Amino acid sequence: MIETALLEALKGGEWCSGVEIARRTGVSRTAVWKKIEALRLQGYAIEAVAGRGYRLLGGPDRLLPSEIAPHLRARRFGAEIVHRATVDSTNLLAAELARDGAMEGTAVVAEAQSAGRGRLGRTWASPSNLNLYLSVILRPAVGPMAVTPLSLVAAVAVAEAILATTGLRSGIKWPNDVLLGERKVAGILTEMDAEADRVRHVILGIGVNLNATSRDFPTELRRKASSLRIATRRRVDRARFAATLLDELERHYDRFVQGGFRALRDVYEAYHCLPGRHVRVEGRRGPRGTARGVDDAGALLVETPDGVVAVTAGEVSLHGNYRG
Amino acid sequence: MIETALLEALKGGEWCSGVEIARRTGVSRTAVWKKIEALRLQGYAIEAVAGRGYRLLGGPDRLLPSEIAPHLRARRFGAEIVHRATVDSTNLLAAELARDGAMEGTAVVAEAQSAGRGRLGRTWASPSNLNLYLSVILRPAVGPMAVTPLSLVAAVAVAEAILATTGLRSGIKWPNDVLLGERKVAGILTEMDAEADRVRHVILGIGVNLNATSRDFPTELRRKASSLRIATRRRVDRARFAATLLDELERHYDRFVQGGFRALRDVYEAYHCLPGRHVRVEGRRGPRGTARGVDDAGALLVETPDGVVAVTAGEVSLHGNYRG
Repeated sequence: MIETALLEALKGGEWCSGVEIARRTGVSRTAVWKKIEALRLQGYAIEAVAGRGYRLLGGPDRLLPSEIAPHLRARRFGAEIVHRATVDSTNLLAAELARDGAMEGTAVVAEAQSAGRGRLGRTWASPSNLNLYLSVILRPAVGPMAVTPLSLVAAVAVAEAILATTGLRSGIKWPNDVLLGERKVAGILTEMDAEADRVRHVILGIGVNLNATSRDFPTELRRKASSLRIATRRRVDRARFAATLLDELERHYDRFVQGGFRALRDVYEAYHCLPGRHVRVEGRRGPRGTARGVDDAGALLVETPDGVVAVTAGEVSLHGNYRG
Repeated sequence: MIETALLEALKGGEWCSGVEIARRTGVSRTAVWKKIEALRLQGYAIEAVAGRGYRLLGGPDRLLPSEIAPHLRARRFGAEIVHRATVDSTNLLAAELARDGAMEGTAVVAEAQSAGRGRLGRTWASPSNLNLYLSVILRPAVGPMAVTPLSLVAAVAVAEAILATTGLRSGIKWPNDVLLGERKVAGILTEMDAEADRVRHVILGIGVNLNATSRDFPTELRRKASSLRIATRRRVDRARFAATLLDELERHYDRFVQGGFRALRDVYEAYHCLPGRHVRVEGRRGPRGTARGVDDAGALLVETPDGVVAVTAGEVSLHGNYRG
């Protein structure tokens, strides 16, 4: 991408002549000038002085492919990035692209969602230009039964990306909520389009609260939601975070495809915050008892008076305090 | 539905006065006259003579809700029927209705499909006004892993509907092709929209070749496709068949929801034509051996030199003759 090469040439804030940029990016000086204008329109502050050339004063706080790509180590995840200032839901757009044949790893990022969605038909608060709303297209060669643990895999990737970016150790609440303290910092919505015995595509939708402050959330969420900024009192470089998350997603997804959830169980458990807590699984016949971790299929093990029960679906609520 | 009540009043081909019809259907005589005109436009031959009233000479050979409903015993399946003269694919329209909230059992029927689809991305030959193209919306309260056997359940319902309508005993080729002799008479495409641990809806798409003759099929299918008409040398009442199939689908689906595939395993095996035959499962590591029926989860059991293998997905090809 010319933008990436051009921004690479200007990196460091030093002056760089048009001739030099043209040489490094392999396009004409006129093309360089046009691209500089295009980048300015995207929010890049680029100074131009006759005889000295150009220099980059600052980038926009946007999740543009040109901002994410330089930080990306993943090879397939994010190789194609579709960016929208606003979208109904990144998952819906990703599903559309998947139906049109987009390859595995294609990512959709948006600055805002007008109809952000969560699990079980809930909404996901999506204030503008503050957080990350990301969806990745997956095409695992498995049957629908093998898809269930993918949400847990994504939760691990989010927790690892948070750790790498901020040093913060988040907790995963089974199956896939990511918490800082007791407040939600990220949510995951995994959707699939499948035949009876064949998955066509899976959309891994991830919302991570990055730079939102508590007043950016609707009143009813303020006591339940956190963000990396709230927890660290510092702004996060959103594009860099997106790249780190794509790296972690590719790494853990590849491990999952190779070895199943079993290969990720230990790292999941290292972040899992339910073990030892008294939990109740919602629903008519939902068991109550003490959470005892997850099994090789990603099911939550709950120790009840009648023995250990493996819970494969449902919402868990916490009761009482830690029991160790 | 007024159409149904009106056709009910005219049933038997006897004269029935406008006053009488108005009384039985509970609408005005003007409304009766308007509905008669509407039915004529749909292809009903209705004679009208002053002083005697109306009589029904014949109905159209169409899969109209007014033609299907009188034969229907099912309560939920077909309670809502959407009819189209032509549609890209009944599954696509049903999926759209499902996303808009259509209830379980809602059925889509079409006289023709411009883009009829089969399993594994194949097409389904869909000549006009001869066969049945039916899709039913299901909303089972299960996780994605429990959906796989639904195709087998649908195959049983098709085999039972064929038996009830024609007396013919068809064979099911695992997982869900329905055959007469060695030729395909029906195909099933089960598609689902799901979250990681929750099915939103399943679309059960069924194509049954009813009145097509071999020249109605594309040349390359003539040796592979059959129809009820080819097998019996008689035309089938398509609307009646659709009603019977909806009945059988509801009956077997309810058994599946209550007791799992295990509850239907015996009836599936009674139609299953693979046991005892030498089969090969396509794919890189697909096993070869003698088919030995299905297990409680609907997986095909294949006896290989290395032991019995349970196959959950894939295409099976036949090799050699019956071995008993």
